[in-house]
Amino acid sequence: MRVVVIGAAGMLGRKLVQRLTRDAAVGPGRIRRLLLVDVVPAQADDPREVAIDTIVADIAEPGVAEQVLSGRPDLVFDLAAVVSGEAERDFEKGYRVNLDGTRRVFEAARMLGRGYRPRLVFSSSIAVFGPPVPDVIGDEHRTTPATSYGTQKAIAELLLSDYTRRGFIDGVGIRLPTICVRPGAPNRAVSGFFSSIIREPLNGVPAVLPVSRDVRHWFASPRAAVQFLLHAATLESDAIGPHRSLTMPGVSATVAMQIDALRRVADDDAVALIKDEPDEATARIVAGWPRSFDATRARALGFRAEDSFDEIIRVYVEDELGGPVGAAGP
Amino acid sequence: MRVVVIGAAGMLGRKLVQRLTRDAAVGPGRIRRLLLVDVVPAQADDPREVAIDTIVADIAEPGVAEQVLSGRPDLVFDLAAVVSGEAERDFEKGYRVNLDGTRRVFEAARMLGRGYRPRLVFSSSIAVFGPPVPDVIGDEHRTTPATSYGTQKAIAELLLSDYTRRGFIDGVGIRLPTICVRPGAPNRAVSGFFSSIIREPLNGVPAVLPVSRDVRHWFASPRAAVQFLLHAATLESDAIGPHRSLTMPGVSATVAMQIDALRRVADDDAVALIKDEPDEATARIVAGWPRSFDATRARALGFRAEDSFDEIIRVYVEDELGGPVGAAGP
Repeated sequence: MRVVVIGAAGMLGRKLVQRLTRDAAVGPGRIRRLLLVDVVPAQADDPREVAIDTIVADIAEPGVAEQVLSGRPDLVFDLAAVVSGEAERDFEKGYRVNLDGTRRVFEAARMLGRGYRPRLVFSSSIAVFGPPVPDVIGDEHRTTPATSYGTQKAIAELLLSDYTRRGFIDGVGIRLPTICVRPGAPNRAVSGFFSSIIREPLNGVPAVLPVSRDVRHWFASPRAAVQFLLHAATLESDAIGPHRSLTMPGVSATVAMQIDALRRVADDDAVALIKDEPDEATARIVAGWPRSFDATRARALGFRAEDSFDEIIRVYVEDELGGPVGAAGP
Repeated sequence: MRVVVIGAAGMLGRKLVQRLTRDAAVGPGRIRRLLLVDVVPAQADDPREVAIDTIVADIAEPGVAEQVLSGRPDLVFDLAAVVSGEAERDFEKGYRVNLDGTRRVFEAARMLGRGYRPRLVFSSSIAVFGPPVPDVIGDEHRTTPATSYGTQKAIAELLLSDYTRRGFIDGVGIRLPTICVRPGAPNRAVSGFFSSIIREPLNGVPAVLPVSRDVRHWFASPRAAVQFLLHAATLESDAIGPHRSLTMPGVSATVAMQIDALRRVADDDAVALIKDEPDEATARIVAGWPRSFDATRARALGFRAEDSFDEIIRVYVEDELGGPVGAAGP
């Protein structure tokens, strides 16, 4: 099969590509060609069994989506996005990439004609939900985003369902929890501190906590997120039904629970590196964020996440620091 | 004040323009200039007190929205739309007008700069709701449209809230019930038969009923719809809150209730002109449509519709046939 990853140089894209090239398969389908697309060069390590092509281009520019889909791929992962903080700061860029870019991909599939109907896995976000949110958000909760990013994702979800209903794509949207612990440098997402307060201490570096410790939020590891994408790629289309976006499972944890888990997985010295520096603007934004989901539909369809925040930290230690914390810690 | 009506030549647009020129005011604000925009020439009868300008152009074409807003109107009614049946038949036209056209209007307001923030009344639709629907749909029900038209309206609602939140417009979306009794020739909406089975018999003409008589749906008269638009134009912005689209009140009636009302307002001869010709495609679409709403938010904000279907028919007789049915009937 032919597979395309749009947004292949991002954190999640890189991890997905790593899995795709390692497995050389998605479910029962062998990957013959893998096309990596991003605004910066995307790379695949050690692609022994898979032929890799690369396009360095902005999916929101005219003609790029058509070029990307010209090989009529069987499977498209559409992960390209401007993150929440940046979409809020740069209104035009957010709409151009998150709305227009996504729509261009769907349109390119439509223009290839009715015989073509790729599985399209779209990375949506829990940012489609806005205040007021109940303690646990059910699968039928309305989407009332409170940010431009969330608006753009909610619009893309509507397009995904309509393009699927019309037979132009076979779309699956997965509403990702906040991905934690993100490796590497912070990105521009407002949610970045949820990762920083774990990642930096595990690497012996101080971290700033801008909100109070009773803030509760919804998390999954990068490894779980990659597994969501792969599982979404192989779902039976009919099992999904007409509403094509699914809230993914995750772990609901307060900042205090995050910190307790850090203490258990690492030690008190790590925890001592977290500095409380309350920031009112961040606290105000985060106050309207979802705290927990039931994710019944996704669980019934076989999606799985971590069971505890301890497990989320251990995944970071295994995948990013090369083993148990004693070996890799500061 | 300066007022713009986009879609001024449509059924609702014409009736709105008639009210605006007759009243020469919206709430406490005197109308000095009224700009009428549509793809066909729009007209105002007897505009004694109001200076009328007209633009004949497609709002979805580049540059048109900028021209329309160049006079920095205080109030914009955005009624331009491709109706449900046509948007379903012509995918590209529906998205071009209902999504891109609407977005161009919002963008034109944004580009005029932060000092400019017009009240923008957007005509949305109960088509933003799709199956499964409960018997009575509450204000917090999720939008899961089952048509491209409903998708386009749901997307426009998301944009309306985000552009309002960002301070580019002061938007109010009103989710219109199915407007009944529509005067004149049928339009391309799938819902057209709900009007035909009343209008044609009142004019002595046979009408076709393509669905069963126990089908229930949600209605308001054209007169009520114009009143919704005018009321939306004068609402306090803060009273609306962050979710800028409101489900309008209406009358929930089955086809049997419609026909009973026709018998009461007219007579058995009128009812005898209705011919049952079941059409499976129409029945299947209509089966997923909303049957009733509570419209609590809108009612609390002062929106009012008819109380019965008899009243809806009487409005048609008064407004379109020039008086009680005895004088104007066939």
